[in-house]
Amino acid sequence: MLVVMEKGTSEEKIKAAVNAIERRGYTARPIPGGDRVSIGILHNKGSVDAAHFLGLDGVKEVIPVTKPYKLVSREFKQENTHIKVGDAVFGNGSFPVIAGPCAVESQNQVLSIAKSVKDAGAKLFRGGAFKPRTSPYSFQGLGKQGLVFLAKAREETGLPIVTEVMDVENFNLVEEYADVVQIGTRNMQNFSLLRRAGKSDRPVILKRGMSATLQEWLMAAEYIMEEGNTNIILCERGVRTFVRHSRNTLDLSVVPAAKKESHLPIIVDPSHAAGVRDQVIPLAYASAALGADGVMIEVHNNPEEAMSDGAQSLYPDQFVTVMEKMNAIHAIIKK
Amino acid sequence: MLVVMEKGTSEEKIKAAVNAIERRGYTARPIPGGDRVSIGILHNKGSVDAAHFLGLDGVKEVIPVTKPYKLVSREFKQENTHIKVGDAVFGNGSFPVIAGPCAVESQNQVLSIAKSVKDAGAKLFRGGAFKPRTSPYSFQGLGKQGLVFLAKAREETGLPIVTEVMDVENFNLVEEYADVVQIGTRNMQNFSLLRRAGKSDRPVILKRGMSATLQEWLMAAEYIMEEGNTNIILCERGVRTFVRHSRNTLDLSVVPAAKKESHLPIIVDPSHAAGVRDQVIPLAYASAALGADGVMIEVHNNPEEAMSDGAQSLYPDQFVTVMEKMNAIHAIIKK
Amino acid sequence: MLVVMEKGTSEEKIKAAVNAIERRGYTARPIPGGDRVSIGILHNKGSVDAAHFLGLDGVKEVIPVTKPYKLVSREFKQENTHIKVGDAVFGNGSFPVIAGPCAVESQNQVLSIAKSVKDAGAKLFRGGAFKPRTSPYSFQGLGKQGLVFLAKAREETGLPIVTEVMDVENFNLVEEYADVVQIGTRNMQNFSLLRRAGKSDRPVILKRGMSATLQEWLMAAEYIMEEGNTNIILCERGVRTFVRHSRNTLDLSVVPAAKKESHLPIIVDPSHAAGVRDQVIPLAYASAALGADGVMIEVHNNPEEAMSDGAQSLYPDQFVTVMEKMNAIHAIIKK
Amino acid sequence: MLVVMEKGTSEEKIKAAVNAIERRGYTARPIPGGDRVSIGILHNKGSVDAAHFLGLDGVKEVIPVTKPYKLVSREFKQENTHIKVGDAVFGNGSFPVIAGPCAVESQNQVLSIAKSVKDAGAKLFRGGAFKPRTSPYSFQGLGKQGLVFLAKAREETGLPIVTEVMDVENFNLVEEYADVVQIGTRNMQNFSLLRRAGKSDRPVILKRGMSATLQEWLMAAEYIMEEGNTNIILCERGVRTFVRHSRNTLDLSVVPAAKKESHLPIIVDPSHAAGVRDQVIPLAYASAALGADGVMIEVHNNPEEAMSDGAQSLYPDQFVTVMEKMNAIHAIIKK
Repeated sequence: MLVVMEKGTSEEKIKAAVNAIERRGYTARPIPGGDRVSIGILHNKGSVDAAHFLGLDGVKEVIPVTKPYKLVSREFKQENTHIKVGDAVFGNGSFPVIAGPCAVESQNQVLSIAKSVKDAGAKLFRGGAFKPRTSPYSFQGLGKQGLVFLAKAREETGLPIVTEVMDVENFNLVEEYADVVQIGTRNMQNFSLLRRAGKSDRPVILKRGMSATLQEWLMAAEYIMEEGNTNIILCERGVRTFVRHSRNTLDLSVVPAAKKESHLPIIVDPSHAAGVRDQVIPLAYASAALGADGVMIEVHNNPEEAMSDGAQSLYPDQFVTVMEKMNAIHAIIKK
Repeated sequence: MLVVMEKGTSEEKIKAAVNAIERRGYTARPIPGGDRVSIGILHNKGSVDAAHFLGLDGVKEVIPVTKPYKLVSREFKQENTHIKVGDAVFGNGSFPVIAGPCAVESQNQVLSIAKSVKDAGAKLFRGGAFKPRTSPYSFQGLGKQGLVFLAKAREETGLPIVTEVMDVENFNLVEEYADVVQIGTRNMQNFSLLRRAGKSDRPVILKRGMSATLQEWLMAAEYIMEEGNTNIILCERGVRTFVRHSRNTLDLSVVPAAKKESHLPIIVDPSHAAGVRDQVIPLAYASAALGADGVMIEVHNNPEEAMSDGAQSLYPDQFVTVMEKMNAIHAIIKK
Repeated sequence: MLVVMEKGTSEEKIKAAVNAIERRGYTARPIPGGDRVSIGILHNKGSVDAAHFLGLDGVKEVIPVTKPYKLVSREFKQENTHIKVGDAVFGNGSFPVIAGPCAVESQNQVLSIAKSVKDAGAKLFRGGAFKPRTSPYSFQGLGKQGLVFLAKAREETGLPIVTEVMDVENFNLVEEYADVVQIGTRNMQNFSLLRRAGKSDRPVILKRGMSATLQEWLMAAEYIMEEGNTNIILCERGVRTFVRHSRNTLDLSVVPAAKKESHLPIIVDPSHAAGVRDQVIPLAYASAALGADGVMIEVHNNPEEAMSDGAQSLYPDQFVTVMEKMNAIHAIIKK
Repeated sequence: MLVVMEKGTSEEKIKAAVNAIERRGYTARPIPGGDRVSIGILHNKGSVDAAHFLGLDGVKEVIPVTKPYKLVSREFKQENTHIKVGDAVFGNGSFPVIAGPCAVESQNQVLSIAKSVKDAGAKLFRGGAFKPRTSPYSFQGLGKQGLVFLAKAREETGLPIVTEVMDVENFNLVEEYADVVQIGTRNMQNFSLLRRAGKSDRPVILKRGMSATLQEWLMAAEYIMEEGNTNIILCERGVRTFVRHSRNTLDLSVVPAAKKESHLPIIVDPSHAAGVRDQVIPLAYASAALGADGVMIEVHNNPEEAMSDGAQSLYPDQFVTVMEKMNAIHAIIKK
C-alpha cells in the first residue's frame, strides 16, 4: 500500500503518518519523489484497509499495491485448478457445457430437456428448484420437489446436476441432491452463505455479483476457500451498466483478466446476461472463442410456456447447432 | 404491459400473440397505431413477467406500464407511513438523526460515542456487531458481545439501538437486542433474510443495493411487507458507478423519486457513500436540504484508531456543528 | 408514445392531457386499462419528445414506443447495407480486418507495419495523424505530415487508409488523404462534425460514444445519413462502466442488437476497450465468433517504444496468428 | 507513477524495465517490498502515459501517483479563483444563480422570463440559441436570431448572458453576444473547441461530460487554461449510470472533490440531471447546502408549450420560492 502525502507536507506530519502506520503493526518506508513524499507500507500479511490511513492529516490518497486475495490468486498457486464433475473437467483446457431450463417445472419437463441436451453433448444438467425472484409474487420454484425431479433426471441420463442454493437453511437439502451447488449473483456477498459453501464437499459455481469488481468477486471466492473448499468455478453472467439493449452487459474481458489473477476455472452464462435468445447464441460463440472454461446455457422444450425466462431459453434444436459450432470454435482456439 | 409488434407483422402472428397472452390468463387488447400494432395486457394482478412474451414471433419489445410493487406503493396507501422509535418519528416531516461508530469495538468506545452523539441531538445510536466485510481477513465484528455493549449504551443514554443483521441464523439474537434492525446493501436481495425480517416486530432499515434500481429496492421492501412487517425505512447509501473520487455515488435524486412512488420514509447515509470525511459533511447538509426523512452518520471518538472505516467517521465536535446546521437547514425547507 | 396517467386521475385532467397532445399536432387516443388510463400518441412523424408531456398534471410516466431513428433503421431498409472499400466489403457477411498503429510516428514505422499487416491478410490500414488525447501535454499526432506518410503506405501496399478526423476545420484535409474517415468516441455527439461527415463522399467509421446507448448511437448515424452519406460503419469500442480490470467494457451484445435495429454494418475495436494485449487477443476471437462485420486492431512493430497505447498493440507475429484463427472462426459461424 | 512487478520477477526483467523507463527520459527507482518489487518513476514533468509501461515483460500493474493536471490544480494555485461577471462572483463563497429557459424561442419569451428571474434574484440569464439535440429532427435552436433576442434581454434587464457554443465555426459569433460561453456535456472532450475557448476572453462554463471522471474533466479544463483563459467555471450536470428514475444521476460528491483538487469554482445544474421538476427543486436545495459556487436552473414562463425540456423547467413563481430557500440555506452553511 502506498500512502501519498500532499505536496509540501511538513516533516512533522510525515512522521505522524509513519507513526500511525507503525502503531498498527506495519513497516512504513517513506519514499521521497520529485514533488511529494509517499510512504510505502511493507510486511503486511493479507490486505491493509485503506480507510485506516485515508483520514490522516496530510494524506492525499491511499493506493493499494498488493491485491487483497491470497488463496485464490495465481501468485499463490501457479497451475490451473481442475475440477472434475462426472465426465467433465473445468479448468483443464476443455469446454464442458452445462444446460437446462431456468426453473424446474415438472418431472416430464426436466426429463425431456435433460435427454435432449445430453444428446447434443452437454455434460451437466442445470435447473432451478429454489428461485431468487425480484418479486415476491413471481414463481419461486418447486423447492424440494424440484430437487427430486432433478435427481430422477440424473438417474435417467447420468448427467450431474447443477442447482442454486439461496440460503444456509436449505444448504443441507440442496447439497444432498446437487452435484454442483450454485451461488447466485444476488448472494455473491452473502458472507454467511459463502462460509457454509466453504464447508461443503460439493464444487461451487460462484456467479459474479451484478456490480462486483473482479477483486470483490475473488474475495468472495476467498471466503469459500478459506473454509476449506477449493473447488470453485467462477461464472460471469453480465454486469449492470447504463446499457438498455440487453438485460445486463456481458463482460467478456473478465475471463482473461480472471485467468491472469487466479488459478480458478471461469465459465460464462450468456443466457441471463442477454435476456433474449437472439443475443444468447452469438454470445455463446463469443464465450467459446474467448477461451472460457465452459458455458452454462438455458434450454427449454417449450419456451413459450416456460414459467420463467422463456425469452432467453434456446429451443432444443437450436441448442444442437450451438453445441456443434461452439465445439468447432473451441478446437480452433486450442490449436 | 404493452407488447409492441414489429412493423408489418401479419394478422396471423398478432392473433398468435394474443392467444399466447390469454393462455396465461390475461386479457389482451390489440391497439393499432400509425406504424405498427401494440397489444395491451389488462387485468393482470401484480406484475407480469416481460420474459413470457419477449420471445414470441413478431414481438419487437415488451414495455411494462404498471409498476410491479403493490403494498409499498403510494397508489396503495396515500399517506406517509410514520415509524416511531424512542423519541424519533420517521416519515412525519421531522429529521431524526442516527449516529454512532461503524463497528462496536469496546464498551468504553460505545459509551463514550453514544453520550456525545446524544448530547449533540442524535435520536438513535448505531454500531455494527456483525460486520459484512469484503475480505475474510478483515475485522468481522464482536458478534454477541457487541450487542451486549450496545444494550449497555442504550441503558445509559436512553437512545434506541440500530444494528445490522447479516443472516437468518442470527436474526433472533439481533432482534432481541436491537430496536431497529438494519439490512445491508449486499443483502438487499437476500430474499430469505427479507422474509425473516417481514416476520419481525422490529422496524427495519433497508439499505439500497449497490446497483439496485428504485424498482428493485421497492420490490425488496415488498418482500418484507408481504410477510406482515410494515415498518420499513429505506436508506440510500450510494450506488456503484464509474466514478472514482468517492467510494460510491450518493444518488440523492432517489429521495424525491422514492417519495413519489412509495409511502415509506427514506433516509440517507452519506458516510458509506463518500468514504472520506471531507465529503460526508457537505453530503449530510445536502441530505437535510433535500427533504430526506433523516440521516445516518458515522461518528467515532478516535477515528485514527478505528477498526473499520475511520476515514469516513466524523469527530464528535464536528458532529455537533453538523447537527446544528442540518437542523437549521431542515427548518428552512419545512417552512 | 404512451402517456401513462396516475391511478384515479379525473376525467378532466385526462381531457386536458389529450388537448395538450393534440395542440402539438398529434392524435391522442385514451386507452382505459384495469387500473389507470393511458393515452396513445399516434400519427407522429419521427420522434416525439417525452419532455413535452412529462410535466402535465396527472401524468405519471411517458413511455416511448416507436424508436426515434428512421433512415438507419431496418424497418426503413430491410437489406444489409454493403460498403465497399478497396478489396473489402463491410456488411455482406465477410470479415474484413483493419489494422495498424495507434499513431503515425514516422514514414518507416507506417511502411513497416503496413507491409506486415497486409501480408497477414488485413484489408485496410489504420493510423492516427490527429490524435484526441485526454491530456494537452500528450503527443497529439503528426497532423498533415502523418497523412502524407499514410498516403505513401497506401501507395506501397495498396491498402486503403482509415484515419480519424477531429474537427470540421481539418475535414477537407483528412478527406483528401483518407479512404475512410473515422469519428472517435469523444465526438460521437459532436453534431457539427456529424453533419460535415454527412456531406462527405467518404465512408465513415462512427465509433460508439463512451456512454452512448444504442439508440443515441443510431441517432448520431441518423445525423450523418440525413445529410446524404449512407456509407456508415458502426464501431463498438467499449463503454464506461464501474469495471477496473480493463480500460473500458467491450459490450459485445450491442452487435446482435444493432444488427436487429439497423441495416448498417458494425465492427469491433477490441484494442481500445481492453487496453492490454492479453485481453485484446481473446476479445478479437470473440468478435469474430459473434458475427461482427469486421474488426479494427492495433499492431505496432515496436510496441515498447510506441508513442501512444503501446500496451494494447499486438506484435506483428502475434497478429499473424490472430488473423488465422479469426478467419477460421468466421468460417465456422458462416456455415 | 509506480510500476508494480509480478511476484518473483527476475533481476534481469527488473533491469530491463528500469532501462525502458529511463530510455523515455525518466528516473526509475526500484523499491523492494515484502512480496514484490515496484519501480517508482520520478522527475516526470506533467503526466506519464501508463500505456508505455503496462506491456513490458514482468509488469503486473502501473499505478499513477501524481495527478496529470497542473494549471488547474490546487497544488499549483492554492487560493480559489474568483470569476466576476456583472454583479456576480463565482468562487468567492457567494452563491450566484443563473436562470432562464432551455431554448430561446421568441423575443417575448426571453424578455418575460429574464424579467421574472431577475426580480427573483438571479444574477445571470441563460438561454440556448444553438441546441445540441440527440435527434436531427428535434428543434435545433434559433441560431443567430436567438443571440439577438438574448442581447435584447440583457439590454432590458442588465443581466449578463450565458449561452452554449457548439463548434469552432460559430465561436466568434457566440462570443460576440455572450458574456459567458458554455461548453456542453457532449463537447467536454471536443479538444478543438476547448482550444478555441482557451483563446477567448470570455469566461467559460465547462459542463462535465456524461461519463467523465473528475480527472478527465479537470484535464479538459487544463486544455482551456493552457491556451491562456483562466476563467473557467466547472458545472456538474449529472452523469450516466444504470439508474432510471432520473435522466442522469447528479453526482454531488464531485463538488467537494473538485474543490479539493482544483482552485476553480464549481456550480451545479440540477435541471438537466433530473429531467423532471419534482426532482429539480430538492436537488437545487441540496446544491446550495453542499457549498457549490452557484447553480444554473431552467425556468420557463409556459413550460407546457416549451420547445424543449418543458418538464424540467420551473414555473416563475416556483422559482421565487426556490431562490428564497436556496439563499437561506446558503447563509447557514457559510456561517
